Amino acid sequence: MSVRIIPLGGLGEVGKNMTVYESGGDAIVVDAGLAFPRDEHLGVDLVLPEMSYLADRAGGVQAVVLTHGHEDHVGSLPYLLRQVRVQEVWATRLTLGLIKSKLDEHGLLRSAELRELDVGKRHRIGAFEVEPVRMAHSIPDAVALAIRTDGKLFVHTGDYKLDHTPVDGMKTDVGRLAELGNEGVDLLLGDSTNAERPGVTESERVVGEAFRQIFPLRSGRIVVSSFASNVHRMQQAVDVGIDLGRKVCIIGRSMRKNANIARNLGYMNVPEDVLVKPDALGELPPGEQLILCTGSQGEPLSALTRIAYGDHPALTVERGDTVVISAKPVPGNELRVHDAINRLARAGAEVLHQEIAPVHVSGHGNKEELRTILALLRPRAVMPVHGEFRMLAAHAELARDAGVPASGIVLAENGSVVEVENGSVRIVDEVEAGVTFVDGLGVGDVKDVALRDRRHLSEDGVLIIVATLAKRDGGAIARPELIARGFTGADELIEETRDEAGRVLRELLDGDVLEIKLLQEHLHDSVGQLIYDRTRRRPMILPVVVEV
Amino acid sequence: MSVRIIPLGGLGEVGKNMTVYESGGDAIVVDAGLAFPRDEHLGVDLVLPEMSYLADRAGGVQAVVLTHGHEDHVGSLPYLLRQVRVQEVWATRLTLGLIKSKLDEHGLLRSAELRELDVGKRHRIGAFEVEPVRMAHSIPDAVALAIRTDGKLFVHTGDYKLDHTPVDGMKTDVGRLAELGNEGVDLLLGDSTNAERPGVTESERVVGEAFRQIFPLRSGRIVVSSFASNVHRMQQAVDVGIDLGRKVCIIGRSMRKNANIARNLGYMNVPEDVLVKPDALGELPPGEQLILCTGSQGEPLSALTRIAYGDHPALTVERGDTVVISAKPVPGNELRVHDAINRLARAGAEVLHQEIAPVHVSGHGNKEELRTILALLRPRAVMPVHGEFRMLAAHAELARDAGVPASGIVLAENGSVVEVENGSVRIVDEVEAGVTFVDGLGVGDVKDVALRDRRHLSEDGVLIIVATLAKRDGGAIARPELIARGFTGADELIEETRDEAGRVLRELLDGDVLEIKLLQEHLHDSVGQLIYDRTRRRPMILPVVVEV
Repeated sequence: MSVRIIPLGGLGEVGKNMTVYESGGDAIVVDAGLAFPRDEHLGVDLVLPEMSYLADRAGGVQAVVLTHGHEDHVGSLPYLLRQVRVQEVWATRLTLGLIKSKLDEHGLLRSAELRELDVGKRHRIGAFEVEPVRMAHSIPDAVALAIRTDGKLFVHTGDYKLDHTPVDGMKTDVGRLAELGNEGVDLLLGDSTNAERPGVTESERVVGEAFRQIFPLRSGRIVVSSFASNVHRMQQAVDVGIDLGRKVCIIGRSMRKNANIARNLGYMNVPEDVLVKPDALGELPPGEQLILCTGSQGEPLSALTRIAYGDHPALTVERGDTVVISAKPVPGNELRVHDAINRLARAGAEVLHQEIAPVHVSGHGNKEELRTILALLRPRAVMPVHGEFRMLAAHAELARDAGVPASGIVLAENGSVVEVENGSVRIVDEVEAGVTFVDGLGVGDVKDVALRDRRHLSEDGVLIIVATLAKRDGGAIARPELIARGFTGADELIEETRDEAGRVLRELLDGDVLEIKLLQEHLHDSVGQLIYDRTRRRPMILPVVVEV
Repeated sequence: MSVRIIPLGGLGEVGKNMTVYESGGDAIVVDAGLAFPRDEHLGVDLVLPEMSYLADRAGGVQAVVLTHGHEDHVGSLPYLLRQVRVQEVWATRLTLGLIKSKLDEHGLLRSAELRELDVGKRHRIGAFEVEPVRMAHSIPDAVALAIRTDGKLFVHTGDYKLDHTPVDGMKTDVGRLAELGNEGVDLLLGDSTNAERPGVTESERVVGEAFRQIFPLRSGRIVVSSFASNVHRMQQAVDVGIDLGRKVCIIGRSMRKNANIARNLGYMNVPEDVLVKPDALGELPPGEQLILCTGSQGEPLSALTRIAYGDHPALTVERGDTVVISAKPVPGNELRVHDAINRLARAGAEVLHQEIAPVHVSGHGNKEELRTILALLRPRAVMPVHGEFRMLAAHAELARDAGVPASGIVLAENGSVVEVENGSVRIVDEVEAGVTFVDGLGVGDVKDVALRDRRHLSEDGVLIIVATLAKRDGGAIARPELIARGFTGADELIEETRDEAGRVLRELLDGDVLEIKLLQEHLHDSVGQLIYDRTRRRPMILPVVVEV
């Protein structure tokens, strides 16, 4: 039986990456990410890959292997460990540190054996040999995986850019990638995020250079907001801040946690005497403060949003202060980020953001970097992963340009079962691979029908008609009542609607229609029509008929 | 009494521009725009400036004067004419053409006298003299207004860029602006949209050059989507298409309408024999088709979205076709536009958009253009308008750099009453200036409370508890029923909730609590708490207590 590769998430989207490799009865899962809800996912907290295929798998999976510590690669791990029998979780040191803390919070530390991936070593995992290869990305300790099984070599890049001057000196290991290319790569599964973008992504160091230009000119507070996991970004800000004699304060739970883990494991260097706690900021002159904080996406309860709305207990910004939003809004978050910028500007701060200053670079390689990887690996076949369809298609185009024949390029979807044979790659089957919503404590109980109802309710609200009728003789007892929420109608319309409901009810009862379901249907239709005619709105109509 | 300037919309936002000028008992309104709803405006169709200040004004207003035909400058005109007594509406020729069609649809053609603004002439309007000055923008026939009254000169720029090579040759009239500067400008009200952006916006002609590079290489259909009012964009695409022997088809109601008006008035040149109707496309080889269409913002029912979803009656795209999205997503529309791109890519089309190709330029001037205007006009005072707060603040900074003293710069808000005296500008008062929502046929009836309810409903749905009790003795008659929509609970939870509702009801009735309102309150609180404890969700709880 040949090797089967099954993406369960991350194709046709940016988020919730998860790919299953099956060989000789064994299975490993590369990455276990989550996605954040979109507008249409009303009320949903998190979006997970559907894992029923794995849950139904006899014997579970040998291991989950993680390429790096971003939420779209590790965020669904706790849910995976609850639903699927997993023997081991493999990751590099920082990634392990991050997920240990996450699993601890979920009370899942003992649910699988946590094992460290050593860059350059080959790790035997069931029928697989997994070799991590150093890749530069916007979080330290990111790796590609060279996966050997069944006499074949697969390279799964994870997220990467070709940063030749990364902050920690840990460059993408182009030498090792070239060796893998010489060995002969049967299939490349490559990051497609920036496959549409021309040229090369700038080095992370460019942001440090911007900080070196910006910070010395400022005499007030400097607040830098970035992703909580962007250790290098924080390090660069800290380095410049220290040179200028500023103290460093980290605000925001996730950033404090990540900074602690990174410092303890040696991935971040902040001398103890430079750090101050948020409640000590008040005693420090603004010109001696450097604040690192969460909220670069304008998340409602984040540190930066609370600061922007003047609602943070430890920090207020004022004229003379500078806020650097060192991130790009993830599509869908633009308006929130703009709101935060406007609020901060209104408070008097100067706000520098990626639209107007070089304070952010992407963590993903552009076209020329993808071409370089294709040139180094010379894969016989390519399966673009990690991206919306347009990005996957652009990546496929790059593979064609690099000389990969059409039979060696596959545009798969979540749930596709992919096989490689003699340099040709095919989709041979399909498995269940939808989405699972996390809403409050519920995982998977909120389905499309609930979302459809929420959407309907959100558009025009709800109108409840309460009608009572006597069980004995089926006569209506009182004039129907109306309860409206999120629907606004003039008093006359409400009265007209009650009359209409009463009329419909009487007519039906007179016609000896007594079945509650039928009465409700008729009430629903006639009241809905009346409301639409008068207002061009379609509130959800809920008729309640009480028999007494 | 001195001149009062009152912005009713467009400050602290991009959208719904409207500014009142009052002098000697007379009033004119510059622009009457609308805004499109944001995510939080659930179910709302349009957002208008609140016009109660104008509606309450004794004698109404002399005139509405429009700077150009974009919706955020003319879209609320029909609503203004319904609410406020307006004697005249002034606009340049194309703008007049566009609003005539709009007013006709609303049956409002006779509600005010429509008069044409002649560039270079001074028009007497009550206590004001209004002189339009040619400005380049992303719609033809845009003007700034030089407004003279009470011995003062105000310059209201409208939207502009300093395009020195506009498609129609109608450059921003820097010569006339310089003359106004020599005459002495008391107050500049200037477009702030791109005040944060360094350098200069590129000429509209750059897009035409991109078309000249892109189109000849394509052998399939070429579809260009842009704003329906972007006459120059359409003209440039048409010119290149004609040179290549393609026929032109315009799809989308608003674009067809605007193109008709622009052609009839001589603002657009498309020979009749080049045009084909949508239903004739099928007879034309793909390589001879150039389609111009609406939907560049991913609007749900627009032509491009329907094409992307394979749902357009006249047009299907396929491999070999090229779609050019010649616009930038307005913040908030990014995900919809990305969805359209992905769908089109999936259908096989190559999609070029502003992130990856030079197929769009902004219609607003950047920093250096704003500086040029400040240098030409040398205003004694500056009031940044047309922009979010951060943009207004950046514009104020440019004014400071240009030598305008702090006392001559005002950051006003919608509703501020602004006066200028001896080069000093001050906010002297405040009037009502909120938002008015249009929802279906209702204008202004949907208020914040309805939106709050819709938001609540959208998060976790609704749970209706129906309890009946006997009027005579107050005894509960049946076990309470539950109706849930958009809320998902396990069967056990539903049963537990019914039991809890029954228990609460019995307890209250046993304690002789008979008042319906009180019973409902208690049901609401106890059921809400139970649901939250079990699910961490907060559906809207609506208790219905029926007395029989």
